[in-house]
Amino acid sequence: MNSINATIITIGDELLIGQVIDTNSAYIAQALSKIGIPVTGRIAVGDNKESIIDALDTASKKSSIIIITGGLGPTADDITKPLLNAYFGGKMIIHEPSLSHITHIFETIHKKPMIERNRKQAEVPDVCEVLFNEKGTAPGMLFKKEGVYYFSLPGVPHEMKWLTDYQVIPILQKDFNPDNIAHKTLLTAGLGESFLAELIAPFENALPSSIKLAYLPNFGMVRLRLTGTGKDKNALENLLQTEFEKLKLAVKDYLVTDADETMEIVVGNLLKQRNQTVATAESCTGGYIGHLLSKNAGSSQFYTGGIISYDNRIKTEFLDVPTHILQTVGAVSKEAVEQMALAVRAKMNTDYAISVSGIMGPSGQTDEKPLGMVWVGVANREKVVSKVFYLRFDRLRNIEVTANQAINLLRLLIINKI
Amino acid sequence: MNSINATIITIGDELLIGQVIDTNSAYIAQALSKIGIPVTGRIAVGDNKESIIDALDTASKKSSIIIITGGLGPTADDITKPLLNAYFGGKMIIHEPSLSHITHIFETIHKKPMIERNRKQAEVPDVCEVLFNEKGTAPGMLFKKEGVYYFSLPGVPHEMKWLTDYQVIPILQKDFNPDNIAHKTLLTAGLGESFLAELIAPFENALPSSIKLAYLPNFGMVRLRLTGTGKDKNALENLLQTEFEKLKLAVKDYLVTDADETMEIVVGNLLKQRNQTVATAESCTGGYIGHLLSKNAGSSQFYTGGIISYDNRIKTEFLDVPTHILQTVGAVSKEAVEQMALAVRAKMNTDYAISVSGIMGPSGQTDEKPLGMVWVGVANREKVVSKVFYLRFDRLRNIEVTANQAINLLRLLIINKI
Repeated sequence: MNSINATIITIGDELLIGQVIDTNSAYIAQALSKIGIPVTGRIAVGDNKESIIDALDTASKKSSIIIITGGLGPTADDITKPLLNAYFGGKMIIHEPSLSHITHIFETIHKKPMIERNRKQAEVPDVCEVLFNEKGTAPGMLFKKEGVYYFSLPGVPHEMKWLTDYQVIPILQKDFNPDNIAHKTLLTAGLGESFLAELIAPFENALPSSIKLAYLPNFGMVRLRLTGTGKDKNALENLLQTEFEKLKLAVKDYLVTDADETMEIVVGNLLKQRNQTVATAESCTGGYIGHLLSKNAGSSQFYTGGIISYDNRIKTEFLDVPTHILQTVGAVSKEAVEQMALAVRAKMNTDYAISVSGIMGPSGQTDEKPLGMVWVGVANREKVVSKVFYLRFDRLRNIEVTANQAINLLRLLIINKI
Repeated sequence: MNSINATIITIGDELLIGQVIDTNSAYIAQALSKIGIPVTGRIAVGDNKESIIDALDTASKKSSIIIITGGLGPTADDITKPLLNAYFGGKMIIHEPSLSHITHIFETIHKKPMIERNRKQAEVPDVCEVLFNEKGTAPGMLFKKEGVYYFSLPGVPHEMKWLTDYQVIPILQKDFNPDNIAHKTLLTAGLGESFLAELIAPFENALPSSIKLAYLPNFGMVRLRLTGTGKDKNALENLLQTEFEKLKLAVKDYLVTDADETMEIVVGNLLKQRNQTVATAESCTGGYIGHLLSKNAGSSQFYTGGIISYDNRIKTEFLDVPTHILQTVGAVSKEAVEQMALAVRAKMNTDYAISVSGIMGPSGQTDEKPLGMVWVGVANREKVVSKVFYLRFDRLRNIEVTANQAINLLRLLIINKI
């Protein structure tokens, strides 16, 4: 071990057969990364004794911090706790604070009598430190052996998150003295990965060796991340900031934000700063733009509402798209989305509106209108602007990319770039 | 190696610092699982030479099939291809079919001249079989060494998916003769994991040893999966079917579907079979229910549209919720959601409607209305039914659980259970 690093082990057959997507690892990795502990490996194993032991053996050779999630639930397919007990040579005892907490959850919140299966959740190996779980019935555990810390957390996301933030991170900050690591991320839109790379090649080639650049393309946009490591915190932050300013300058024509935030956060903040509002008129995205605009706290300050005009009848009846437009140029047209944006803005009396209409696939194309063709419109009190996109992904990804491009078009309208 | 199994290696710093969630692994694992090749491990490593080599060494000791994704893009942070070339002792050559494909993508589709960086994407090690990538510029690669197959795929999801389906799977089916593995999954709603486990304990205890039961709780529902393995395909399928029928009977009061499908697919199918339609009136979910109902192909057959009444003004102006209701019992009330459901159903002239209004957090609670309180309404042409839920998750999860519970309430209305 050259420096402090962590390995994440996720347990569960559902992860291996692909039935569930592992979002826990990303959360834990972010949290550790923020306090300067790099995650150097992640291992996923099934609900299988040999595989779990093998993963523990492997991880402990490489990392002094091991975070295990999954396999602590009340059901019989969860084998982690007895396995860890045997692995560390303990015996099972009842943890009284957890037992009274579990009893409270069942009797006061669920208003159901507790069953033996729930009571067993308060059992812990006597060789671990119990990490009290305020958010659920499965306590977290910390085992220490030969300088290695093994944290075991339940797989239920909101319980895992709380335990990470309020138990794991404070312990790591206290007991380890992590090297300094720092990230700076910006978001670009409007230029593909390879062209962006070409544009910033001079910058990249001149980067000092302690700073790495990564490209993270998603939703038709590219996120750029600088990561630096160093012994001296101030020197590292100064160097990173200097390089970050150069990077911002290099991509200035495509820069959306110099913070690590999503497109909808950027636009939400622009609207909040201006005390302005937006409404949506969605066809092919079916409510997804509304969801993006409203998923973050505080969105009621700027998001007024919307019409989901999935059926063409709704476009006519609720958004006054004339039947002759639908019959001639069709619903996927400049004329239709511009009318949709104008109508929803006027009817909901907002400062801005976004509208979309397109062919998300896997069928619905015509000779003139290919799969993935989508019209996006944005309007303010003075004008309406529209743009056509040709996407080539699957249905769900087409929806996601469309929503992000539409919100980006609104951003450009708000800052007077279109 | 006791039997054929696979390990997935995902490469990319973004996975380790948690900036990107790994959905590729789940896709690959599902695809392999379907043809009877279990994934016994997943390893995620950063863009770091030593870690990648270490992962390759580790994986090849355990699995005869290794699938590597990530690190094949056009930018300088992608080190996988040269590394694999060195690992397998090859030299780089231009792959002419890939070069003409890349040239075609740039010149015909993007209508931009190709740059040297793109041309390099057609370079491959001479010791691999090239897996032609119809969907993008980075070819897949297959290396074979000492009986182990190493597949290297790009990390861009739609490219990885296409290569998995049309290149990797056919090769594996031809060259390996996988053991039989089979899954049967059902979805329940209305009973928590521990109570469900209690209910089916007699079934679980009597399961034959070749069949495993797994609990997969999510969105306030629990998915149950039986997995069987065996030499004789017919015998396995018969045994699995017999046990699955017993399980269905044991959970019959809570059974949503006996197929591995989501709640919105189940409800979409019910509506399509009946040739019926639904509209939505969403406050706190901000369009997410509309998104769930419209994200799958064919949804225009049953989803008409919706009103996102995020601001109370929209509830009054578009859904006729009387001001006195908003001023007395408030927007998060039985009265408000019932009126919302009735209004949107009548105005959009659909067979059914769903409405929701709640407090998703992290703020907005009052003395009478706690965080996570949400009213859900469903209506048909005869009646309206509503139900209150008290959720205790974070904002995004509250939105997801609310949407699923609301669609489940519609299901119960459609099948006359409420």
